[in-house]
Amino acid sequence: MAVDFEKYIKSVADFPNKGITFRDITPILLEPDIYRAATHDLAEYAKKMKADVIVGPEARGFIVGCPVATELGLPFVPARKPHKLPRKTISASYDLEYGSNVLEMHDDAIKPGQRVVVCDDLMATAGTLRATKELVEDLGGSLVGAAFYVELPDLKGREIIPDIDVYSLVKYHGA
Amino acid sequence: MAVDFEKYIKSVADFPNKGITFRDITPILLEPDIYRAATHDLAEYAKKMKADVIVGPEARGFIVGCPVATELGLPFVPARKPHKLPRKTISASYDLEYGSNVLEMHDDAIKPGQRVVVCDDLMATAGTLRATKELVEDLGGSLVGAAFYVELPDLKGREIIPDIDVYSLVKYHGA
Repeated sequence: MAVDFEKYIKSVADFPNKGITFRDITPILLEPDIYRAATHDLAEYAKKMKADVIVGPEARGFIVGCPVATELGLPFVPARKPHKLPRKTISASYDLEYGSNVLEMHDDAIKPGQRVVVCDDLMATAGTLRATKELVEDLGGSLVGAAFYVELPDLKGREIIPDIDVYSLVKYHGA
Repeated sequence: MAVDFEKYIKSVADFPNKGITFRDITPILLEPDIYRAATHDLAEYAKKMKADVIVGPEARGFIVGCPVATELGLPFVPARKPHKLPRKTISASYDLEYGSNVLEMHDDAIKPGQRVVVCDDLMATAGTLRATKELVEDLGGSLVGAAFYVELPDLKGREIIPDIDVYSLVKYHGA
């Protein structure tokens, strides 16, 4: 079934800041057939990329990535904000429009040689993705693909990380 | 298969604060069969409670609840920290050891009459659970059960919310 995922994404003007249009994926989650179809499409992509592990960045990456991991029977690794993971971690920072953020991963989360696919709700400037790539590579893994519900191609995330294969369900232009 | 889930939970002393033993469920996520078994057990519980909707509080509640929702084919509703949900929300606050926190839900997330099961990683003093109950009931739903990977019975969460049925995979005493 070809699903029109865009019907289930709400565009909210001026959130979180004036001039930003937020793409809200929560209506997908309210429609079980649509959430399953989105999960299945991302899982097929991860299978095609021969993923050994699914990584999801906090917090919407958990919503997107966890059911992909359980569908495929693959490990799920959370990339979290600082001070959330209790054991030994590695960290990577990334720039935001104002200031910067840090992502952490447990240092035993990825094994050397593992092929990783990142799942998240939205790719804009690919900041989170670059930080996640750094974490994965620090642990000896390789980031072989990234799968999103939504992509904003005009922000040129794919040009910033040309070495990472990207898959998305819906693209919004002019964002 | 009867799974010894406790084998896949790491106890970390003095995290996040001195004197607290953190129960880290991330090793479960690294073992696909164990993550699926945990998901399936919580899904069987939610089915028994005739859930119409699964709610997961940010952020570990997403990891626990999302695959339960996709396994059962039920809607998933995130309960989030403030300023994360872009549309009209309702909110409820709950006390922490120091200070308090707020949870929000989109005001169209639950329909009147729906039966809700909350999924999360750990029940301690049931603060998050009480706030979630308030949100669900404000929208006309009823909270019919709560399912956790880990329960700390000595903190007496069940006594604080005696009207909510609670299910957990692993109990730690003396926490």
